[in-house]
Amino acid sequence: MAKVIKPRLAKGTRDFSPTEMALRRHIFGVIEKYFKRFGFDQIETPAVENLETLTGKYGEEGDRLIFKILNSGDYLDGVDSTLLQNRESNALIPQLCEKALRYDLTVPFARYVVQHRNDISFPFRRYQIQPVWRADRPQKGRYREFYQCDADVIGSNSLLLEAEFIQLITLVFRELNINYTIKLNSRKILFGFCEALGIESKFTAFTTILDKLDKKPWQALKTEFLEAGFSDDQTKAFESINDLNGLELSKTGFENLKAAIKLSNIGQQGLAELQEIMSYLSSQTLSNVRLDLTLARGLNYYTGAIIEVAAKDVDIGSICGGGRYDDLTGIFGLEEMSGIGISFGIDRIFDILSASPSADHGNKSTSVVFINFGNKELDYSLKALDKLRSAGIRAEIYPDPDKLKKQFKYADNKGASHVVTAGELEITKSMYTLKDLKTGEQELLNMEGLINTLGADAYI
Amino acid sequence: MAKVIKPRLAKGTRDFSPTEMALRRHIFGVIEKYFKRFGFDQIETPAVENLETLTGKYGEEGDRLIFKILNSGDYLDGVDSTLLQNRESNALIPQLCEKALRYDLTVPFARYVVQHRNDISFPFRRYQIQPVWRADRPQKGRYREFYQCDADVIGSNSLLLEAEFIQLITLVFRELNINYTIKLNSRKILFGFCEALGIESKFTAFTTILDKLDKKPWQALKTEFLEAGFSDDQTKAFESINDLNGLELSKTGFENLKAAIKLSNIGQQGLAELQEIMSYLSSQTLSNVRLDLTLARGLNYYTGAIIEVAAKDVDIGSICGGGRYDDLTGIFGLEEMSGIGISFGIDRIFDILSASPSADHGNKSTSVVFINFGNKELDYSLKALDKLRSAGIRAEIYPDPDKLKKQFKYADNKGASHVVTAGELEITKSMYTLKDLKTGEQELLNMEGLINTLGADAYI
Repeated sequence: MAKVIKPRLAKGTRDFSPTEMALRRHIFGVIEKYFKRFGFDQIETPAVENLETLTGKYGEEGDRLIFKILNSGDYLDGVDSTLLQNRESNALIPQLCEKALRYDLTVPFARYVVQHRNDISFPFRRYQIQPVWRADRPQKGRYREFYQCDADVIGSNSLLLEAEFIQLITLVFRELNINYTIKLNSRKILFGFCEALGIESKFTAFTTILDKLDKKPWQALKTEFLEAGFSDDQTKAFESINDLNGLELSKTGFENLKAAIKLSNIGQQGLAELQEIMSYLSSQTLSNVRLDLTLARGLNYYTGAIIEVAAKDVDIGSICGGGRYDDLTGIFGLEEMSGIGISFGIDRIFDILSASPSADHGNKSTSVVFINFGNKELDYSLKALDKLRSAGIRAEIYPDPDKLKKQFKYADNKGASHVVTAGELEITKSMYTLKDLKTGEQELLNMEGLINTLGADAYI
Repeated sequence: MAKVIKPRLAKGTRDFSPTEMALRRHIFGVIEKYFKRFGFDQIETPAVENLETLTGKYGEEGDRLIFKILNSGDYLDGVDSTLLQNRESNALIPQLCEKALRYDLTVPFARYVVQHRNDISFPFRRYQIQPVWRADRPQKGRYREFYQCDADVIGSNSLLLEAEFIQLITLVFRELNINYTIKLNSRKILFGFCEALGIESKFTAFTTILDKLDKKPWQALKTEFLEAGFSDDQTKAFESINDLNGLELSKTGFENLKAAIKLSNIGQQGLAELQEIMSYLSSQTLSNVRLDLTLARGLNYYTGAIIEVAAKDVDIGSICGGGRYDDLTGIFGLEEMSGIGISFGIDRIFDILSASPSADHGNKSTSVVFINFGNKELDYSLKALDKLRSAGIRAEIYPDPDKLKKQFKYADNKGASHVVTAGELEITKSMYTLKDLKTGEQELLNMEGLINTLGADAYI
């Protein structure tokens, strides 16, 4: 047959073992539970989208990071000769690739909403948990294939929704036992700063640079502002944002902020909105929420409140983020659909919890392994196995009559809680010997006793 | 902004709505439940694999159907000039594409086993539920992106495992309420036929043609056999297989079959194996199992018993299939690991159940929608909402104080079971009006009454 190939993963991708999957499923389960309690329904969209659906939505850098799928068959047939001869890699992409892997869940969601708008009852609350792909350079906490876990409500501009998302985030991280801070800002306030300085046309340049603050110190940003053509005075004014930052969400704080953007109506509106959002939240929820005026969020489709969650004890970047957008579906022809959404960084949350020593997450593996004594005793064990499984217990029999030591070692490695031995002695008595692998204790039980003892921790 | 793009799906892919997702999750849930009860643990592998991991494992046709991912950056840099000039699409693939989308879950599983062999406790029982991609021509029941749902045991050649898989399949389809037949055969018996005819070197050609029987009549196959260089006599002998087919799994049946392959040791062995497998099964399970000597399974890695499940009431092709393999991991350098696995055709099962009128599958959406009367009454409703959610009830408030009719219509469309109205009257009495959307009845309840009434069908 073919030559032997060294088994290895594609760069920036990962396998997940049974133990890792148990933790992942635990995380998905907690997030999903709260999505559902808040009235979100699940949808799925395909991993593969038409390239034109994705192109131009994530900026030039984003377009480069989209994984394109080579057309099937004779993909060079009909391709422009000059471009090919000059090796114009970029210009040739649309001719070589019709399809691509989704880059996030947001753009496919926008496509979904417009395509199915006649079947959707708005405001539409949906959640979606699926992988996305980016041709980023892999590094700690950054993968080329990773899960996004999004919830959005589209078709309402009620600020109640901002408050609900903050509540939902709070409940999720509390249950996952992760220390967190929710940073809150409004793109309207940031716009207000620009408007107050009379430079609203440079708003995007401003936020793009500001967004780098979690990776670079303020001093470096100053240089970037100057290089981008902002004046000395403007750059100094931006610094006042950094000073206002960390402001407690107190009345005084708000008064200072109000003064700083008093020249901008939009800025004032952004501030009023944050105040309304906070009025819907309990003081308990608010204790983890911090106004962060330097929070910009990279994506330009955000138009109102923006949210980002940082883990307190680990330096791993944002573990959840989102915000209000006013025109996500416009590119697909459906205007004036205000919406808001958040996305949990499942893979980073997974990395945090994997590294935490609190251990025992998620669902157990097999509860019980039957020892295989060979053909004579097999029938007796198989019947018991059937009954345990019918009772919902995770049970298996070691498939070969190997040495007992090997069979016990298998059960142990797999993390089984118990082993059943049913040899000649047990068969004569119509009983089973059940050994608890943690305590080492064993008892002789009949079928009912077996089910009762194992049943307690049988379900996930 | 950018020009408006018509929202459409890539060919051969699908969106899944909340209702469809509820059914899919129901199907996944049933299959997963039995996977777990039989001691299988979940793993996940990435969608993107190195192209060399996948190439050459699925035959020439399979290689063509693998979706390749264009290298990022300047992918034409360094590419062979002559090949480019001559537009040698096929020969250029390895230079343009390092990565590809997985074609099935089996080859990635083999890679996983070899790569992680030191951490695995064998025999390794794993299950995996993830999408795969094939550049097939889309048609009814065939998609370019679809889920596979696989369970395998690797590292044991015990025939108990064949029996367990048949049991597992039985339990799954019984619970899913699908009428099915399990077809059983052995590649060893098929080899036995060839050996008895002295043409074992043409075994692959024989099975490849035989495998087409579910798509073409026997007459067409005859022509193909002759075209492939089989003699008239051999082709006639093959026809006897078709005659033996449908054989009841009775003693007489076996005797006839035994006679037909008495010249082949391997054939006899295959037959003895099937008898042993059936000896492990209850008569209840066996009632849906049928020996099908024309079952060949397309993939050549199968070496022993093979299984395929057909839905009885629908013409949609195989809905589950699998078999014994002796050397799946050899290509990655790990020899002599016998294994067996099955794969559920989730997307076809989904199509069958979607079309069935028995309706109400899977998890409910939001149980209760609170009507929004505007700011004055909001606080009262928000507090109740919190309490219901804490009690595990799926609850939401309509985000805007729109017209009542619109709000009720939303609740109805979403499939909510109840609506709560809490206006001035209710607030004065510290009560809530709960309306059952199915019966139209309404009652005035306090918080406790609300939780008790809604709690009953709150969980999924």
